[in-house]
Amino acid sequence: MIRLQSHPSGRHFLQIPGPTNVPDRVLRSIDNVTIDHRGPEFGVLGREVLAGMKKLFKTESHVIIYPASGTGAWEAALVNALSPGDRVLMAETGHFATLWKKMAERLGLQVQFMPGDWRHGADADQVAQVLAADSAHAIKAVCVVHNETATGVVSNVAAIRKAMDGCRHPALLMVDTISSLGSIDYRHDEWGVDVTVSGSQKGVMLPPGLSFNAVSAKALAAAQSAGLRRSYWDWQDMIAANETGYFPYTPATNLLYGLHTALEMLFEEGLDNVFARHRRHGEATRRAVRAWGLEVLCKKPEEYSGSLTAVLMPEGHSADALRAVILKHFNMSLGQGLTNLKDKVFRIGHLGDFNDLTLCGTLSGVEMGLGLAGVPHKKGGVQVALAYLSEQAGASA
Amino acid sequence: MIRLQSHPSGRHFLQIPGPTNVPDRVLRSIDNVTIDHRGPEFGVLGREVLAGMKKLFKTESHVIIYPASGTGAWEAALVNALSPGDRVLMAETGHFATLWKKMAERLGLQVQFMPGDWRHGADADQVAQVLAADSAHAIKAVCVVHNETATGVVSNVAAIRKAMDGCRHPALLMVDTISSLGSIDYRHDEWGVDVTVSGSQKGVMLPPGLSFNAVSAKALAAAQSAGLRRSYWDWQDMIAANETGYFPYTPATNLLYGLHTALEMLFEEGLDNVFARHRRHGEATRRAVRAWGLEVLCKKPEEYSGSLTAVLMPEGHSADALRAVILKHFNMSLGQGLTNLKDKVFRIGHLGDFNDLTLCGTLSGVEMGLGLAGVPHKKGGVQVALAYLSEQAGASA
Amino acid sequence: MIRLQSHPSGRHFLQIPGPTNVPDRVLRSIDNVTIDHRGPEFGVLGREVLAGMKKLFKTESHVIIYPASGTGAWEAALVNALSPGDRVLMAETGHFATLWKKMAERLGLQVQFMPGDWRHGADADQVAQVLAADSAHAIKAVCVVHNETATGVVSNVAAIRKAMDGCRHPALLMVDTISSLGSIDYRHDEWGVDVTVSGSQKGVMLPPGLSFNAVSAKALAAAQSAGLRRSYWDWQDMIAANETGYFPYTPATNLLYGLHTALEMLFEEGLDNVFARHRRHGEATRRAVRAWGLEVLCKKPEEYSGSLTAVLMPEGHSADALRAVILKHFNMSLGQGLTNLKDKVFRIGHLGDFNDLTLCGTLSGVEMGLGLAGVPHKKGGVQVALAYLSEQAGASA
Amino acid sequence: MIRLQSHPSGRHFLQIPGPTNVPDRVLRSIDNVTIDHRGPEFGVLGREVLAGMKKLFKTESHVIIYPASGTGAWEAALVNALSPGDRVLMAETGHFATLWKKMAERLGLQVQFMPGDWRHGADADQVAQVLAADSAHAIKAVCVVHNETATGVVSNVAAIRKAMDGCRHPALLMVDTISSLGSIDYRHDEWGVDVTVSGSQKGVMLPPGLSFNAVSAKALAAAQSAGLRRSYWDWQDMIAANETGYFPYTPATNLLYGLHTALEMLFEEGLDNVFARHRRHGEATRRAVRAWGLEVLCKKPEEYSGSLTAVLMPEGHSADALRAVILKHFNMSLGQGLTNLKDKVFRIGHLGDFNDLTLCGTLSGVEMGLGLAGVPHKKGGVQVALAYLSEQAGASA
Repeated sequence: MIRLQSHPSGRHFLQIPGPTNVPDRVLRSIDNVTIDHRGPEFGVLGREVLAGMKKLFKTESHVIIYPASGTGAWEAALVNALSPGDRVLMAETGHFATLWKKMAERLGLQVQFMPGDWRHGADADQVAQVLAADSAHAIKAVCVVHNETATGVVSNVAAIRKAMDGCRHPALLMVDTISSLGSIDYRHDEWGVDVTVSGSQKGVMLPPGLSFNAVSAKALAAAQSAGLRRSYWDWQDMIAANETGYFPYTPATNLLYGLHTALEMLFEEGLDNVFARHRRHGEATRRAVRAWGLEVLCKKPEEYSGSLTAVLMPEGHSADALRAVILKHFNMSLGQGLTNLKDKVFRIGHLGDFNDLTLCGTLSGVEMGLGLAGVPHKKGGVQVALAYLSEQAGASA
Repeated sequence: MIRLQSHPSGRHFLQIPGPTNVPDRVLRSIDNVTIDHRGPEFGVLGREVLAGMKKLFKTESHVIIYPASGTGAWEAALVNALSPGDRVLMAETGHFATLWKKMAERLGLQVQFMPGDWRHGADADQVAQVLAADSAHAIKAVCVVHNETATGVVSNVAAIRKAMDGCRHPALLMVDTISSLGSIDYRHDEWGVDVTVSGSQKGVMLPPGLSFNAVSAKALAAAQSAGLRRSYWDWQDMIAANETGYFPYTPATNLLYGLHTALEMLFEEGLDNVFARHRRHGEATRRAVRAWGLEVLCKKPEEYSGSLTAVLMPEGHSADALRAVILKHFNMSLGQGLTNLKDKVFRIGHLGDFNDLTLCGTLSGVEMGLGLAGVPHKKGGVQVALAYLSEQAGASA
Repeated sequence: MIRLQSHPSGRHFLQIPGPTNVPDRVLRSIDNVTIDHRGPEFGVLGREVLAGMKKLFKTESHVIIYPASGTGAWEAALVNALSPGDRVLMAETGHFATLWKKMAERLGLQVQFMPGDWRHGADADQVAQVLAADSAHAIKAVCVVHNETATGVVSNVAAIRKAMDGCRHPALLMVDTISSLGSIDYRHDEWGVDVTVSGSQKGVMLPPGLSFNAVSAKALAAAQSAGLRRSYWDWQDMIAANETGYFPYTPATNLLYGLHTALEMLFEEGLDNVFARHRRHGEATRRAVRAWGLEVLCKKPEEYSGSLTAVLMPEGHSADALRAVILKHFNMSLGQGLTNLKDKVFRIGHLGDFNDLTLCGTLSGVEMGLGLAGVPHKKGGVQVALAYLSEQAGASA
Repeated sequence: MIRLQSHPSGRHFLQIPGPTNVPDRVLRSIDNVTIDHRGPEFGVLGREVLAGMKKLFKTESHVIIYPASGTGAWEAALVNALSPGDRVLMAETGHFATLWKKMAERLGLQVQFMPGDWRHGADADQVAQVLAADSAHAIKAVCVVHNETATGVVSNVAAIRKAMDGCRHPALLMVDTISSLGSIDYRHDEWGVDVTVSGSQKGVMLPPGLSFNAVSAKALAAAQSAGLRRSYWDWQDMIAANETGYFPYTPATNLLYGLHTALEMLFEEGLDNVFARHRRHGEATRRAVRAWGLEVLCKKPEEYSGSLTAVLMPEGHSADALRAVILKHFNMSLGQGLTNLKDKVFRIGHLGDFNDLTLCGTLSGVEMGLGLAGVPHKKGGVQVALAYLSEQAGASA
């Protein structure tokens, strides 16, 4: 094997906003021997993970599990429910929203892209305006990223649904929850989402390699009558085979073992506790950032992310240089700034299998790194985080 | 974790023709902590597995690694190199060739399907005839399954290339090696293949979840000028990012650890030894089958498979009943007959991480199962296999 | 890591009579992170494994778990219950009985060694005679190996107890079950054993590193009033700490995880099923041996072992040469002949995590090896074993 | 398996002074299949771990590896080199020195125990005085704990050797390095130690279950002519078998795999770097402790430990209550005060597989715990540690 743990000593701090630190219980599950994907044991496994995923998405409808990255689940959402030349409304919340838009264009859709400054979530009012103007119902889908991984900004999906309902516009609502599922509260059915896209390697605490579509009855109906050319991503084949716990083609068996265990862990902790933990770690991180005299990229408090915090560098200082110093001296990986934000922000992932002390270690690494990299800042961010975490722990006592 | 090892005692014999028995070394690699897919360690990993895959395909050109099942790699081959309405020539070698054909149709291609009896490989002469008749060069690709997993029949790829060259026909040659790569000799460059499709879970000894395209310069050129709508499967994005060992979207990191180890193991054993071992186990299996008085599905000796042997049941006897008896009493999974062959054949996988004694255990399970299931047969198949394996071991001494 | 899986391909057949093939479930347990041996989670673990071990020994009395090899548990039995110069009666059943005797002498005990031919178990009548003659009750303990790992001969412990009771002799009864616990029926309380010695690496399906004493009230009382100098092995310290699930010094935490899982597996299968399986595999093995025209070392059918079969080589042929051929060609380790039996027997382990097909593979390796090594024999042993295993499977249907 | 990772989320901080956090690389090694302990692969493993252990002890003489806890290695040292009634000089440095003394008494030795206040190391001057007074050379051994795990105080072994040499006293020097080997510089040969005792579960980064004796020629000679009754612990049997890499009784194979990997990791990092890292973490910890206004148990700076720091609680406050609060709220285990120090100190382990950020997390947990438990203290200990660690990182840049 390639030597992966070459760091001087101790655990690497993988604090990018995903892939996240995979818990030992999940890794050990994945390490079990592969079984016959057409045998009786597999059927039990398949049915259990499918049921667990519905619970996680908070849906009574169907969930599809692909042996693919999250990018594949984006593609699956588009090719099943939309037809060539269809118009879709997308919100420019950041790098990943932009990638999804480019994908839509490559697949032959016409994208109306609501511009954004990468510091705000999708604007429900703007969605309302655009849809109201679309009296011909040319727009077939509204696509929003729930938690923009590039910026740490959360869009209000319920508000967007309300905006759509307000216009009585029949477009489908598609939401990317790749970096929010299992970290930030999400409700596929209650919020009236038609297709939710997600992946395994963030809040779901798995290595990358699985991705998901949660699909409403309306989306399924749309897929019946139309859709781009598709085969691998086809929902119908999946749903038919899934009924008995099987898959139309060879599934990623060992990652499904891990998924079974990860779901077990999330439900053991309790989803509400999981979400509260992420909120707490987000708040502690932002308090540290402000104490350092730095700026959180996300502008609006109601759009703060529990999954990650993007931090703006002071003018004239390189985020990538800072990240390199931290990796070298403190064995911690942080997320880089992407495209528009390249070298201007660094991102602290505080999602997945994580706890108060690991957050303290993470913030300590950032604070020491700022010093070593010569970035102007005030000391004491960690101290402020400790005060907040103590207070929260005291309140829960 | 779902309890997977519920069998009474001892190791399960996973003798379906894939997924195969994953070696402990590979499972332990997959169990390592996930790393930053944009960090420096990942780049080394990426470059090494890409180089290893070229060696395995015997190509100097590009290999693409997808986080997807083998079915995804089929789709990738078609959508990159072909355009809507393109005509492709496919050979009906069995269930999987038929699935690939259906996929091609769903993706909007026109398939000319050379019929077959599921007991022979693709017929190079027939290919030559069809191509010779296509003076307008309407046929854009010839698609062949190297080792048909449903039948245990190997098609002669070099002969098909020769047939194509004989007609000076410009069609691309696409070959599925999902159940032959790492088990049966295969030479992407020497045989002039344009796109080779493969997967991780058979001779490559990994769990399912990775698949591959090896791509010739000619196929890349075709992809430039044409191609179906594509994004996830796009070769160009992959090749560009792969140059430094990275991927355009999140790769299945932990499966790549396993791939690194599996390649290491294959090269340690030596590919020629790997292929000879599979040939030896195929021959031992067929001798046992004949000693039982049963018939090997594959008709022509030069098309015998080293990966698996499909065995015809005597008239009036159910292969699925036999398989159920063997699973119940001997904790062994065998491959079922698919579609046309449903209940008529069972398939013995003898590929991947396998050795003489495991084969003896496997054949013993079949022989005892035949008796318990009341299938008419002669005893002594195992004994005949032992004689052959002993002789081979003696020769290698 | 040192490269351990260097064999050409496939699983190694570890068919020595222990250490045995450790099941994946056990290995994965051992691979969990080490916990605080004084924390609350550890107490639960400790209590559960101690309770499980009592069930396995079939005792209501105390079981001690040592972080040590089986040899340490021999020493523990002697130093706790016996005093310097004490006379003990031991039965020469083979190499391991002889080693235990040497240990007793080194520790300052006087050993009366009933001679044996290494082909029979301890003779209850002889025990009765010796004890009857010892009217002064100078003999403080009778020590017997239940299943002599060097010979594959089982001593009748219940008969020996009856012999002792018949003489109303107060000596303690000490029994070594290192290679029978978890493989051959054993009843500490019912058979009136005072100290049962055992280890982790055979029927208990763990790697080596743990060993056991099951201790009767009578033995505990003996330990109170007398005993050799001891500290590490002291029962009292252990029993006191064990009450709450803890240990007087650092226990081998990760092996205890494995023990928890192994006990779970044994009880899931059911001890009676476990014993029946071992008996069946012993019988199948002996039938194969006889079919080869070779001789089983054990003379009396009622003393046959379910754990292992020692096979005599024909005069003038080397067992070690045969074993080397089998290791080289068939990747299987067999047990060697020890001291008196050096090079004269080889031992086939059929204990632990094992099943019918693995046994078939094992016997196939022996049969092929006999041929390659030029050992005179008849073919067909495997075939005979298949017939027996089929018949047994049919009967259980 | 018993559910061990029941904590709400994230990794447990195992900051007791051993067992320590076992690195993934070591756990994965232990998880390999068990091999034949008499086969050729094992010999290579045995020779390599024995050679590595010599390097770690810095000795050219023999190292013995026992399948046993550290307590067993204490016993081994005494029973091999000493005879019944022998007088030994031991230094009361704390709980573990006292346990070793009790063991010596139980084994029949006469212990002269130099009293200590559990806040200082063994006093070389006092040793010199006692030995000078022993003109009859009745004292056969001087026994010292290098790093007293109960107190975090290091004794100066070189000075004690010098004191012994100054008196020309022939007593053997025996040193316990259970919590210093692999963490604090140690030199068996250079310091003239006769028997060094150690264990696997601290700086050596393994789970518990292996322990060690490094043995000088002088100690071996002593063992020849005298010694308590012994068998399991006998050096001679071990040394004889070890020559070819094997052991006189079944070794703890899977833990030896882990030892191989752990040695590899220590040598990769470089022993001097390992020691410097532990010194740095000790100093950072003590600075934090002082900033909190608390007192380090160890009195003399030249006796500070790099392995652990014992911290005195303010009068009237319970260390165990504090530890319970920290375990509950912050998922961290700290070491308890033992016997004389029960409830009066808590111990922070900073040894083994550990790094700057993990230390920051650890100190954060202590600082927050002090607040939640209502222990009077000043905030800012973590901040002071960050300043020190930053400065050190900067210096190494």
